[in-house]
Amino acid sequence: MPQISLRGAAMPESPIRKLMPYAETAKANGVKVYHLNIGQPDIETPIEVLDHMRNLDRTVIEYSHSAGYVSYREGLTKYYAQHNITVTTDEILVTTAGSEAILFAMLSCMNPGDEIIIPEPFYTNYSGFAGAASVSVVPVTSNIEDGFALPPIADFEPLITDKTRAIMVCNPNNPTGYLYSKEEMESLAELVKRHDLYLIADEVYREFCYDGNEHFSAMHLDGIDDNVLLVDSVSKRYSMCGARVGTLISKNKLVIQTALKYAQARLSPPTFGQIAAEAALSTPQSYFDEVSAEYVKRRDLVVKLLNEIDGVFCPKPSGAFYVIARLPVDDCDKFCQWLLEEFQLDGQTVMMAPASGFYATEGLGLNEVRIAYVLNEDDLTQAMACLKAALQAYPDKV
Amino acid sequence: MPQISLRGAAMPESPIRKLMPYAETAKANGVKVYHLNIGQPDIETPIEVLDHMRNLDRTVIEYSHSAGYVSYREGLTKYYAQHNITVTTDEILVTTAGSEAILFAMLSCMNPGDEIIIPEPFYTNYSGFAGAASVSVVPVTSNIEDGFALPPIADFEPLITDKTRAIMVCNPNNPTGYLYSKEEMESLAELVKRHDLYLIADEVYREFCYDGNEHFSAMHLDGIDDNVLLVDSVSKRYSMCGARVGTLISKNKLVIQTALKYAQARLSPPTFGQIAAEAALSTPQSYFDEVSAEYVKRRDLVVKLLNEIDGVFCPKPSGAFYVIARLPVDDCDKFCQWLLEEFQLDGQTVMMAPASGFYATEGLGLNEVRIAYVLNEDDLTQAMACLKAALQAYPDKV
Repeated sequence: MPQISLRGAAMPESPIRKLMPYAETAKANGVKVYHLNIGQPDIETPIEVLDHMRNLDRTVIEYSHSAGYVSYREGLTKYYAQHNITVTTDEILVTTAGSEAILFAMLSCMNPGDEIIIPEPFYTNYSGFAGAASVSVVPVTSNIEDGFALPPIADFEPLITDKTRAIMVCNPNNPTGYLYSKEEMESLAELVKRHDLYLIADEVYREFCYDGNEHFSAMHLDGIDDNVLLVDSVSKRYSMCGARVGTLISKNKLVIQTALKYAQARLSPPTFGQIAAEAALSTPQSYFDEVSAEYVKRRDLVVKLLNEIDGVFCPKPSGAFYVIARLPVDDCDKFCQWLLEEFQLDGQTVMMAPASGFYATEGLGLNEVRIAYVLNEDDLTQAMACLKAALQAYPDKV
Repeated sequence: MPQISLRGAAMPESPIRKLMPYAETAKANGVKVYHLNIGQPDIETPIEVLDHMRNLDRTVIEYSHSAGYVSYREGLTKYYAQHNITVTTDEILVTTAGSEAILFAMLSCMNPGDEIIIPEPFYTNYSGFAGAASVSVVPVTSNIEDGFALPPIADFEPLITDKTRAIMVCNPNNPTGYLYSKEEMESLAELVKRHDLYLIADEVYREFCYDGNEHFSAMHLDGIDDNVLLVDSVSKRYSMCGARVGTLISKNKLVIQTALKYAQARLSPPTFGQIAAEAALSTPQSYFDEVSAEYVKRRDLVVKLLNEIDGVFCPKPSGAFYVIARLPVDDCDKFCQWLLEEFQLDGQTVMMAPASGFYATEGLGLNEVRIAYVLNEDDLTQAMACLKAALQAYPDKV
């Protein structure tokens, strides 16, 4: 029997998914599980999109251009213009979700063995794509005490080696919800320019900025046009995670030409998803306003209820729909499993993502969890009541 | 300005696409171009699929399971059972088209620097995925004289090194249309078993077997369950190339578990495409019968007209919708470009894929072209008349 690859064996397991079997068992035993572990919102996809799909007028579901439909890319230039981002259709590559944009970015800009610096905790799947592209993630640690702000540039400097090719940020951040400021982004720009690095910015939560904060895009940075790659997706923006439509954007023509060769190898991004995404460009502002108001209410509720629990600390982030909370337990992996295996409050329990899986540094984040506030306020209230009771009952509290 | 990656720079350019700019110019000059260069059929997607999409009843376009909807995988087990392939839902991974299945197969089974042996000419994008996975393609040459039959096993043996991890075949074959026999597949089975290799079989043209020939799948081979990976796709089967839904199948549990980790990193295959693909499982046999009859007529016509042209040789393959023809010119790259740049017959010309791009061995296939018979008989007749006239007029005939 032939062996699987070493790289395949080394692929990290998702912290979001490894508890799934325990959740399945809990459900099979009649326990209601509040899923705060995944970023699948309950928000409806805009009705404009669904209506458009129901009026599909194609007779052959053909390949699109490998870089995506020209009409969709033209629509995207207008979308970005509304966010003060000036791009042409030639600078946009439509990808199979943000996932493929990240993979293409790594393949196009980095060789096997090269290093990419990413503030941790970070979206675990970055490690997966790095594994697929045979590049190494070098973490620089951010801290719950300051709400997971960008680590000082002085912390990045000693990590930069001959092999460092890129810095990657997610803004607003998954899993922390932190929104990087203009000043933080400018300090990164200075760093990447000085060391001739790429800056890969994942901005799929652009629309999810709260408390009057404006999103400052990596595309707004001056003087580093050739360094910046923007990763984007319609998944969260229009609550259509299943459409699998994203974009890779760069002013660096050679980067886009190179990424296009990888895009041509896989022929075409999804046609149905692109048709939906193009229709989604007509989504009225009222949709975003409603969604944003809903998430603000949920965030405020979750953060308040969390901080009311003895020994729990949760900073209040300004973006996305995640918070990371510190819990009074020694190992959240065990605690989250215990919640599913051994705990219930009136037949209910809660599933969260242990934060350790979002840290590349061994041993960090053990007393933290990521909570996605993707449920309605009633469910969130019930879930937080479960968590509070569970922490009282848990034998391994610290 | 940071440099692009060496691997990105080394990515091969598609032989199908590099002539595109010349075709665009020809069209801009009012010339009608018959596109025989790409595998985008003109056949309509089954009406069952389109009707189903028009009755879409979702309100949130969510992620599916990373391995694909369970209901779709259950449907697939029945589809495969009809082809005498016994698989369970756990042995099926739904992928973003056959492209992603190939990439996951290579990542899961091969380490960077490992080698995969593929009969040439082969589907060029295999090189693209190999490049993305940092593995090397080692070609073993098949020949137009015997219709591109499987090269003798004696030709494979000297190519097997410590780094060889897999053999890959496409059956029916793109670009040759050749249908591998049971005996040929069994000889490969003996070889992979003896050397403990994987056999990756791309069978996306399964439904396109003509002249009463039955498809013999790699999944029908005895005694090498742990070695076989099946790559499949709905793209050609239901003429829905844009759906981007494929499958990776293996009885080797560790392979599927490993591929699933890559699948989890990208979260979900396309939801719309999966909904369409599940509906497509209800496509009546009459659809396939009609499509098959249409392709047989087209193939017979194209092969006859090609062989009637002075100095042209074209074997008659039993599968897919491609033929490779040998032309009396010294360099088909130049000839195909000349067809677009300098030739027209009554305002018409033809675009074909130079076959050199399907060979990994430098210098092979220079006098061959791939023709996709994806147009109706009238258009094919016109296109062949263009080709005949062009060969008479071409100055660099041999």
